[in-house]
Amino acid sequence: MIAIDWGTTSFRAYRLDPAGRIVDARSAPAGILSVEGGDFAAVLEQHCADWIAAGETQIVMSGMIGSRQGWLEVPYASCPAGLEEVAAGMRKVAWKRGEAWIAPGVTCRDDAGVPDVIRGEETQILGVLDQLGAGRHTICLPGTHSKWVEVDNGRIARFSTHMTGEAFAVFKGHSILGRMMKDGVTDRNAFADGVRRSADDGGILHHLFGVRSRGLFGELPDSASASYLSGLLIGHEIHSAGTSGRTVHLLCTPQLADVYRHALDVRGLESSTLDSNAVTHGLFRLASRLKK
Amino acid sequence: MIAIDWGTTSFRAYRLDPAGRIVDARSAPAGILSVEGGDFAAVLEQHCADWIAAGETQIVMSGMIGSRQGWLEVPYASCPAGLEEVAAGMRKVAWKRGEAWIAPGVTCRDDAGVPDVIRGEETQILGVLDQLGAGRHTICLPGTHSKWVEVDNGRIARFSTHMTGEAFAVFKGHSILGRMMKDGVTDRNAFADGVRRSADDGGILHHLFGVRSRGLFGELPDSASASYLSGLLIGHEIHSAGTSGRTVHLLCTPQLADVYRHALDVRGLESSTLDSNAVTHGLFRLASRLKK
Repeated sequence: MIAIDWGTTSFRAYRLDPAGRIVDARSAPAGILSVEGGDFAAVLEQHCADWIAAGETQIVMSGMIGSRQGWLEVPYASCPAGLEEVAAGMRKVAWKRGEAWIAPGVTCRDDAGVPDVIRGEETQILGVLDQLGAGRHTICLPGTHSKWVEVDNGRIARFSTHMTGEAFAVFKGHSILGRMMKDGVTDRNAFADGVRRSADDGGILHHLFGVRSRGLFGELPDSASASYLSGLLIGHEIHSAGTSGRTVHLLCTPQLADVYRHALDVRGLESSTLDSNAVTHGLFRLASRLKK
Repeated sequence: MIAIDWGTTSFRAYRLDPAGRIVDARSAPAGILSVEGGDFAAVLEQHCADWIAAGETQIVMSGMIGSRQGWLEVPYASCPAGLEEVAAGMRKVAWKRGEAWIAPGVTCRDDAGVPDVIRGEETQILGVLDQLGAGRHTICLPGTHSKWVEVDNGRIARFSTHMTGEAFAVFKGHSILGRMMKDGVTDRNAFADGVRRSADDGGILHHLFGVRSRGLFGELPDSASASYLSGLLIGHEIHSAGTSGRTVHLLCTPQLADVYRHALDVRGLESSTLDSNAVTHGLFRLASRLKK
């Protein structure tokens, strides 16, 4: 089968053997926003032509390909959602060379009734449940929009999204704070200072101004400013997400896992790193539940 | 005398009579960042030529004109700072047509030792102390960088800056949230919803994503989205600044005072509005303390 993680900016395809092992993989900057005229079938056939010619005609996809801007809008499954519930929400798209399916995202509401959504992460979660076992677990998927997911006995119980990565980008790129920044996030000590600062009184809007005022007073070098800002925002994310004392399982690239592990460590919290190739395993498990 | 509020983007000058009453006023988009070659004296003489010709040769200024990018960098006075302390920090600039003075900003450190600064607002505060009387008072000066100032028996005891206005601008202008926004801050109900939302668990980085997810679910119209975001950010500012149960005295334009009064009201807090022409009174009081 062919497993595809098709997001906003990237397209990642994997050829899996009957046991779900990756036998070939490729990626392209062919995210859904780059697909001209909405001809997703053409992009798929272009990038996977040899696999299809070799007889792979079952395709399972997840990510923003199932959003309003994608191939077909697949309605969200509601929490609690495990393998059964996500598989039940899969939709088949029109594709004449074989069977192509898209996984749904998942939605939940927080205590105040405000909705939240994931799309793509649910499949990664399904791919790591075997590693986690039964019981309750906290999984963090850091990024532009970080997701904190509570799993309870193999199902996604609830989750929250935090705009941490995007907040960093807009404050660095477009606010007065960015004007003084000379380097990227390279200073581990300044990063840790930012994480510690997030635990102080005053709130994030006040802490942000401190990036500038500490710079004005020569207490934060321009070269350390972006690192401090990153630590500050990630520290606030960790504090707000809440871990209930459980180990935080990080599901992301090794680089991001390093950053978050450092922040969690500064806050005295346990962490572990999950296999970041989880999406193929999740797609394989979903494929096994499809009606023949 | 001539009183000048000279900020980053604007220049506001007032001719005061010997009792401190405004007899003439003018403003120009001649903020310090627009002054070519740093010739501040030329800009001053251009805009106040007739007043100077009429014999006004004492000039007192406040605002960013005293910053590193201004006419002369005037060191900050430290909290607690009242009329005596701010007056003692005034510096005279070289100006051959008369005497021109610049007020210092004020600095303090929060409980964690992180510095904060105001420059210009201290003079406005000095101008409203008569209205407030003795005792402890909380003053809020909303804006791009909102200032919350605690006054204790006529002196600025401490304050905190919150990047609320700038956060609104960068999220509206440069994040995924802005893409769905159709109107400005015009919907009072959505604004109040945002203020109420700020009191929920989850943290601001999560609440921000709710602007998008509520939109996705049709629970927040695009036309109300900017209003909701504004209420959310101002609500977080008010919560973090803390009012200790005291009336919040608003010192700003009538338009901004309306917005903040609404937010404070939603959170069940008392507010009052101070005379927004406070800066001339503050500059007049400072002038009275200058060594002849």
